[in-house]
Amino acid sequence: MGYTAIIGLYRNARLVQIYQSLKREIPTGYVRFRMMSHNDLSRFFEPEGVAVSGSMQARSGTAYGVMKNMLDFGFSGRIYPINPSCAEVLGLKVYPNIDEIDANIDLAIVIIPPTAVPEVIQRCAQKGVRAAIVISEGFAEASEEGGRLQSQLVDISRRSGIRILGPNTLGVLNTSNYLVTGPYLLGYNKLVKGSIGYCAQSGLLTFGTHPVRDRAYPISKICDFGNKSDVNEVDLLAYLADDPDTKVICMHLEDIKDGRSFMEMAARAVSRKPVLIFKPGRNEASARAAASHTGALAGNDEIHEDAFKQTGIIRLSSWQDFWEVPRVFASQPLPKGNRVAIVTATGGAGVILVDEAVRDGLVITEFKTETKSKLAELSPRFVNNPVDLGPILSVMDNPSSVYEEVIPLVLADENVDCAVIVVHGGLMIPIFSSLRSRISQLSKPVTVFCYGINLAEMEESARQLESLGFATYFDLETAVRALGVAAAYSRIKSGLQNPGYA
Amino acid sequence: MGYTAIIGLYRNARLVQIYQSLKREIPTGYVRFRMMSHNDLSRFFEPEGVAVSGSMQARSGTAYGVMKNMLDFGFSGRIYPINPSCAEVLGLKVYPNIDEIDANIDLAIVIIPPTAVPEVIQRCAQKGVRAAIVISEGFAEASEEGGRLQSQLVDISRRSGIRILGPNTLGVLNTSNYLVTGPYLLGYNKLVKGSIGYCAQSGLLTFGTHPVRDRAYPISKICDFGNKSDVNEVDLLAYLADDPDTKVICMHLEDIKDGRSFMEMAARAVSRKPVLIFKPGRNEASARAAASHTGALAGNDEIHEDAFKQTGIIRLSSWQDFWEVPRVFASQPLPKGNRVAIVTATGGAGVILVDEAVRDGLVITEFKTETKSKLAELSPRFVNNPVDLGPILSVMDNPSSVYEEVIPLVLADENVDCAVIVVHGGLMIPIFSSLRSRISQLSKPVTVFCYGINLAEMEESARQLESLGFATYFDLETAVRALGVAAAYSRIKSGLQNPGYA
Repeated sequence: MGYTAIIGLYRNARLVQIYQSLKREIPTGYVRFRMMSHNDLSRFFEPEGVAVSGSMQARSGTAYGVMKNMLDFGFSGRIYPINPSCAEVLGLKVYPNIDEIDANIDLAIVIIPPTAVPEVIQRCAQKGVRAAIVISEGFAEASEEGGRLQSQLVDISRRSGIRILGPNTLGVLNTSNYLVTGPYLLGYNKLVKGSIGYCAQSGLLTFGTHPVRDRAYPISKICDFGNKSDVNEVDLLAYLADDPDTKVICMHLEDIKDGRSFMEMAARAVSRKPVLIFKPGRNEASARAAASHTGALAGNDEIHEDAFKQTGIIRLSSWQDFWEVPRVFASQPLPKGNRVAIVTATGGAGVILVDEAVRDGLVITEFKTETKSKLAELSPRFVNNPVDLGPILSVMDNPSSVYEEVIPLVLADENVDCAVIVVHGGLMIPIFSSLRSRISQLSKPVTVFCYGINLAEMEESARQLESLGFATYFDLETAVRALGVAAAYSRIKSGLQNPGYA
Repeated sequence: MGYTAIIGLYRNARLVQIYQSLKREIPTGYVRFRMMSHNDLSRFFEPEGVAVSGSMQARSGTAYGVMKNMLDFGFSGRIYPINPSCAEVLGLKVYPNIDEIDANIDLAIVIIPPTAVPEVIQRCAQKGVRAAIVISEGFAEASEEGGRLQSQLVDISRRSGIRILGPNTLGVLNTSNYLVTGPYLLGYNKLVKGSIGYCAQSGLLTFGTHPVRDRAYPISKICDFGNKSDVNEVDLLAYLADDPDTKVICMHLEDIKDGRSFMEMAARAVSRKPVLIFKPGRNEASARAAASHTGALAGNDEIHEDAFKQTGIIRLSSWQDFWEVPRVFASQPLPKGNRVAIVTATGGAGVILVDEAVRDGLVITEFKTETKSKLAELSPRFVNNPVDLGPILSVMDNPSSVYEEVIPLVLADENVDCAVIVVHGGLMIPIFSSLRSRISQLSKPVTVFCYGINLAEMEESARQLESLGFATYFDLETAVRALGVAAAYSRIKSGLQNPGYA
């Protein structure tokens, strides 16, 4: 964390103290100021020294679990276990409390009974720790008593300047330094470094409950907001907008704490990178369910819809889209327009993709005359979009050569902004190695729908395709919907750059 | 095939000959008559003797491939390979042509160059074979010349009464007798017997291109329509409506050959079992793509929409729904109404499920007072729907006991017609063995959304849950959407049974 940011935090804390002493509401100016100190969260994601308080019992769901995961991932920083009744764990010296640690602690991770949390956080703040993740549950989400404990945490944060993520969170994950703070044993090591920043208001949409490694999501950072007692979506938008490792922000939200700050920060983030938001609570019943889950009011959905449109946020509408759509931004260039080409191994897939593409605002382009004549040399049936390779594939000795010829031809067409390719996982993967460089020269996004009869083989193929730089999907329509979202962001971005034009 | 059906087939052929000799259009009465001989397709799905013509080269995509798959699956009938230049294959005697086979042949499977097909089918018809699957490609879907060859096949069928599935098809699959006719090597053996009848107008939506074994689809029959030169959706509706092994018909269509017959047969099928149809071609572009794929006009989508509504067909809207939604009918009883209960391990999933449930026409039920008090004994936080077990699960030594207590309690509530359960794949599977009998007594449908961090473990859990009789999903919203479709069919069915009431 830079010098300015530390001053910023100090000032925030002082300002809050002043306002509190005057018994006045903290003005929005404070929020705006905090937004400006955009390195606020660097200690959460890029700590050097991390203290972990809690049970050292060798099982899932404990402080031990947190550290085991960190070690398995190969976290590059220092780890300091804290527990009064233990001397050593996982080859690390255990300290009775934070004061005994004779080193700089950037981040404290706490997974202890809720009633004990405020005191521990207070001691962290006194020690000079500026960031804490409270994994423990049993706060505002659980009971009135828990709500009071959570208020104490907020008070400590405001008084001391220590920032708190949670409580009731799995914390964060960072593929740059292999930091992971979830307590449930993951059983695998480091993830592939990528550029999607995922944030969610529920553990269900983070790393603890999804096959993020097996499905090769190209992740930069993950954050579980938990109860959002302090750190919330505005902070994450600020941090991820500036994070050079993050190319796309994908956020699940059940409520928005401060609409005005959110909109300001969202607009700033959207000018830099796509911001995709999956926000359920569209109807009264789900808004009520959200309220009982997080204790916050979800608000009128039309207001959210308007706010998203105004700021250029793109709204996703399903759990699957939350995970899958951002892939296209992580590995692909932005399309210059919305004209899509479809290259398929089965006519049936072509029809379904066209249906979905039109629904997503894409145009089924017509190829230029030159392209058509070149395609016609390969087969007179290839001139239309979708290009259905199926009938030719089945009668060729070397079907992969058709893919290798058709895909670059189609992508080079000036009438084509982006393409989706339907391919059998397993059989056709080798051609993508050779296609890769020819495609990347053209700077147009390509998604791949991968099908097959054997799950393990398909999953392995998808991982290979992802590592070759293709955005790869197992769901047919999602492969083209992702391109629709990419084209939508491209339009939003050029509207921002040419306000008169849009 | 029964005696009546044989007479029926004979009469059809005679009738067609008479009409053709008079050079008059075949009247709809013919079609209706054919519809009545509902056992028409039994030779395709339940043959005793099967002849397979084509290349005996030991590779995928040949007649060899067809027979290898049949043997791997353990087909219970007799197999007769036909090839003039080969004596034995896969331990079976090879015959030079069909006339040399001194046994009854119910079904001929043909995978030879298109120009040779008409003659072979003619010989089959002369030999008395009443059903043929033409797997070969290169007919109407490929060229004008192919179209002429296809017309010849139709002529032979009309003159002789031999029914033809295809050309350009992977044929059929039947889990009762382990018949499978696709030529591409599947590399696995028999599937679990189930009760979904899948039919599709594209290989993409059948057994040759989807992990039907790994994802444990409970299948009774599969049929790829191919070019629909003869056998089409009306025949399949007729056959599957009567098939005792099929509880739900799930059909992908790009066009409908004969609207009137289709509607009559659909209405008859819907009165017996749910008919789900996935029909792309909603917009002009995709209708055009469908036309170029199958050579048939997709027609105005509003007409289809109306026809589906009138007959009680339920329209599915995605490739994923095509595969996943019918699970609920295969293993679950029909719900008596549309009031859903949600039992979840994460509050976030609960909110998303409520959102989707309302969209699907389900009602988030309120539990009865007795249920609430019993739930409150377990935790005061359990009284609302969704029941979020998350906060309790994480602090319990034996979290599975909560599932075991809450699920039967909730399902027994008179205000609950159906339920969706969110569960970690792997950890909680054992409890479902003990829950199974308690749940089945209540005769209410239950779907399970299975999450986790390890794909292989999740897939194994899903297979276990399916084998225990639970409809299991990896996609969150689909788990509740399937219940919405089940409730919709339940309403349609009671409307048919009580026409005044609906």
